[in-house]
Amino acid sequence: MSILGKLPMSKVLDHGFVRLVDSMGEDASIVQAARVSYGAGTKTVQDDVALVRYLMRRHHSTPFEMCHLKFHIKCPIFVARQWHRHRTASINEISARYSVLPEEYYVPEIEHLQAQSSTNKQGRDGLLCNPQATARRIEENSKTAYHTYTELLRLDVAREIARMVLPVNFYTEFYWALNLHNLMHFLQLRLDNHAQYEIRVYAEAIAKIVQERFPVTWKAFEDYRLNSKHLSAQGFAVIKQALKGETVVQEGSSMGQREWAEFCQTFYGE
Amino acid sequence: MSILGKLPMSKVLDHGFVRLVDSMGEDASIVQAARVSYGAGTKTVQDDVALVRYLMRRHHSTPFEMCHLKFHIKCPIFVARQWHRHRTASINEISARYSVLPEEYYVPEIEHLQAQSSTNKQGRDGLLCNPQATARRIEENSKTAYHTYTELLRLDVAREIARMVLPVNFYTEFYWALNLHNLMHFLQLRLDNHAQYEIRVYAEAIAKIVQERFPVTWKAFEDYRLNSKHLSAQGFAVIKQALKGETVVQEGSSMGQREWAEFCQTFYGE
Amino acid sequence: MSILGKLPMSKVLDHGFVRLVDSMGEDASIVQAARVSYGAGTKTVQDDVALVRYLMRRHHSTPFEMCHLKFHIKCPIFVARQWHRHRTASINEISARYSVLPEEYYVPEIEHLQAQSSTNKQGRDGLLCNPQATARRIEENSKTAYHTYTELLRLDVAREIARMVLPVNFYTEFYWALNLHNLMHFLQLRLDNHAQYEIRVYAEAIAKIVQERFPVTWKAFEDYRLNSKHLSAQGFAVIKQALKGETVVQEGSSMGQREWAEFCQTFYGE
Amino acid sequence: MSILGKLPMSKVLDHGFVRLVDSMGEDASIVQAARVSYGAGTKTVQDDVALVRYLMRRHHSTPFEMCHLKFHIKCPIFVARQWHRHRTASINEISARYSVLPEEYYVPEIEHLQAQSSTNKQGRDGLLCNPQATARRIEENSKTAYHTYTELLRLDVAREIARMVLPVNFYTEFYWALNLHNLMHFLQLRLDNHAQYEIRVYAEAIAKIVQERFPVTWKAFEDYRLNSKHLSAQGFAVIKQALKGETVVQEGSSMGQREWAEFCQTFYGE
Repeated sequence: MSILGKLPMSKVLDHGFVRLVDSMGEDASIVQAARVSYGAGTKTVQDDVALVRYLMRRHHSTPFEMCHLKFHIKCPIFVARQWHRHRTASINEISARYSVLPEEYYVPEIEHLQAQSSTNKQGRDGLLCNPQATARRIEENSKTAYHTYTELLRLDVAREIARMVLPVNFYTEFYWALNLHNLMHFLQLRLDNHAQYEIRVYAEAIAKIVQERFPVTWKAFEDYRLNSKHLSAQGFAVIKQALKGETVVQEGSSMGQREWAEFCQTFYGE
Repeated sequence: MSILGKLPMSKVLDHGFVRLVDSMGEDASIVQAARVSYGAGTKTVQDDVALVRYLMRRHHSTPFEMCHLKFHIKCPIFVARQWHRHRTASINEISARYSVLPEEYYVPEIEHLQAQSSTNKQGRDGLLCNPQATARRIEENSKTAYHTYTELLRLDVAREIARMVLPVNFYTEFYWALNLHNLMHFLQLRLDNHAQYEIRVYAEAIAKIVQERFPVTWKAFEDYRLNSKHLSAQGFAVIKQALKGETVVQEGSSMGQREWAEFCQTFYGE
Repeated sequence: MSILGKLPMSKVLDHGFVRLVDSMGEDASIVQAARVSYGAGTKTVQDDVALVRYLMRRHHSTPFEMCHLKFHIKCPIFVARQWHRHRTASINEISARYSVLPEEYYVPEIEHLQAQSSTNKQGRDGLLCNPQATARRIEENSKTAYHTYTELLRLDVAREIARMVLPVNFYTEFYWALNLHNLMHFLQLRLDNHAQYEIRVYAEAIAKIVQERFPVTWKAFEDYRLNSKHLSAQGFAVIKQALKGETVVQEGSSMGQREWAEFCQTFYGE
Repeated sequence: MSILGKLPMSKVLDHGFVRLVDSMGEDASIVQAARVSYGAGTKTVQDDVALVRYLMRRHHSTPFEMCHLKFHIKCPIFVARQWHRHRTASINEISARYSVLPEEYYVPEIEHLQAQSSTNKQGRDGLLCNPQATARRIEENSKTAYHTYTELLRLDVAREIARMVLPVNFYTEFYWALNLHNLMHFLQLRLDNHAQYEIRVYAEAIAKIVQERFPVTWKAFEDYRLNSKHLSAQGFAVIKQALKGETVVQEGSSMGQREWAEFCQTFYGE
């Protein structure tokens, strides 16, 4: 498959990567599929770009399903665990029952080794006293585990048993194929700043590839998804009030304290 | 999209067709994806053909999911109704809310206008006294309905209402995209001789396209799916008995009468 | 199944219905599943209602997938065609290959027999000169088709062939099972005022059942989905500008004319 | 949820379990859904048991999709990794970003600590010289990793980072909901003797629950799936030849050596 060498490849984290292996379709394919639905109904020459944006705005997902992408991914196991929760893709992953895994594990860079966030139960935030020591501990733990792994293999323990001593910061690899609609859903969730840093960087690498291949779709995706805002019924009522020049306060908004704070930050923050 | 003209296109029934619009992957892509799973575990140079056959034999489906096909289909509505019950594909269908449908309807050829089967509750079988009269009635019914349709449209009745007078032998069109694994599942069900004739001919047209594009996979599919036989626990016990030279009879086989008849036909019939 | 008699059943259109046959889970099941994810992380006694609302707000869908509903539906074929495009449900539909369909067809009530909308290519809007005549024509077309159908059956034409003369306003029946998350997605699309009237009334009947069984979830669904508003990146920028007291105009908003009109109607309309 | 205490709960491995949390449907629901499809077509009073068996034999899957089950599972991460590759279920898993995981890890019992299989690249087979030493190493590796984990947490390292030092033999928990059809597919793959021992015991625990709740379906599943045999086109030709009393040999069978050996073992072995 000599063609592979020419395909976009992006390094991610210390040993990982994202590579586009194959794809089907382009912006024009989305338009082509949508025009089947509308048939003679789109007699008026509607601009292709406007049509893609209209489809995205109105959440018409099937035309975007007509494009497919296939990636080769290498990432830590704990990232793959989050990744594989997306059920709309096809996956072929390396099996540690068949193969001996190499000594490749992830150690975060010093700047990403952070403290438990006090405001976000699932996040990290703020400096550690001694991040270098933390990095060293993760490194040592990985080396110790890999040593146990090779010892077990040396003693002829079955691979499917021996692999159970490896921590989830060890790397795995898989092929990942899915349609463009489902890929954008993945990106929306994993580009979000609530997503764990280590999967977010993979999402960013994939986003770049999608943007290059589907520039019109990508711009519409940014405008109507990534950078869009969702207003609850309550939030909408408050905004309408404010636009009329009335003063708005939490009381009577039916929003909880946290929701209200987020709302104010979004619409009145810098 | 000048490329379309070169793609395989097959006429089906009186006004229908199947056309491959786009595709991703080939036999080699299946091998490539499978080798990711086995990693260094497939050090032995296993023959590619043997690997594809092994995957098919052992029902390893994910490598086949790495290939995608997109078709443009035109078929009668009652065929589309069966077709769309397969939920693993992406569909963009012409909407009669947007567009006025043309006067295109399906009338079976004389030889396929058959009587109700007496043995198969869902099938056709045997000659009609006057198939020409039947064809004429279907034709008349279609013309009458289309006349009502155009009358309603002339009176400015909304398209989404007017279309409800059209019978299910009128033609519709759609784009249909899915992966090779799901496509083979569709083919297995719709190439079966219990499938209605009118969808079976579409399955046959698609089968030819798949066979051309994925010759190795197709052969494996024929050997391990299409032309394979399924033996129940009871049937297996009977076969083992017979292979030892013992006489086998329905009594004691735990098979019902119909199942036993089918079993005998399969293994002892001509 | 004596329990069935007690289950909610709603008449829809002239001969259709929606009936809840079985279900699994309630609002408390959603909370229960979510708390598995958060584990000891939800030590703080978070209010159950607040948790359901939080899950809906943040688009955490899996806890809602833990509830299942199964319905028995009777609706016209053209409604079933739209319905079955939702691929995330399980369906068992009556087969006209096995059974003779009864003479049951849909004729819209006079008030719903409307003209083609001039602003909405897929809609109806405005009065017809003589809706009674339209109703009569639909009625006649249905009777003629059913007469042809029975004639063909009388001549012993196979059921699977004879049924092709029936128009799409004839009724069909099916069982429909899916999880609550996917059901809400169906409702969001089919309760929308762009959905065709004839499927919208089914969505409304189902909505009532869901509201009764899952009152907390339903309220959250109304607030964060049904009655929520989506702001594009451009719309958001305009709102922020307006909230600062600045004048906003279409020029420079990067919105098309139609999008701008909708935007103004939403935020400044009555 | 006081009802939970009464539901079946099965211990699996050293710290795991399987518990049925909720369910919808029973054998009768499958029959009920199937009869919708056949409508008046099943005028003949077909025995319910025979109908379920017919559906299983002919691979009619949708009636089985009308039943749903929801389980609470606790298993090692490497088992969950295999488990979650089944994409047709809904999952709510404990998140180590939110919660601190307890010190619970899997150490195989001595009898299951086996050597690498020489014939099966992905399996285990045969005795180890000193399985006790292997168990001790796995235990030590787990303790060391957990010690590192608690140390990192003590230093206030974010939970989402600290958890990456834990090996895949640590336990996780999740809710798992799916329909009966997809559950049987899972069981067919994971009850197979090629499945890894550690997931097979979970499949066995689930199988017992299914058997109790759906006895008719389970028997049909055993007869037409679990204990059935698949004959390739080539294998079928050989069997037909043998049944005629002819001698059969590998030459001319078009089967590879391994396939032939398996075939002979199946049909002529003890």
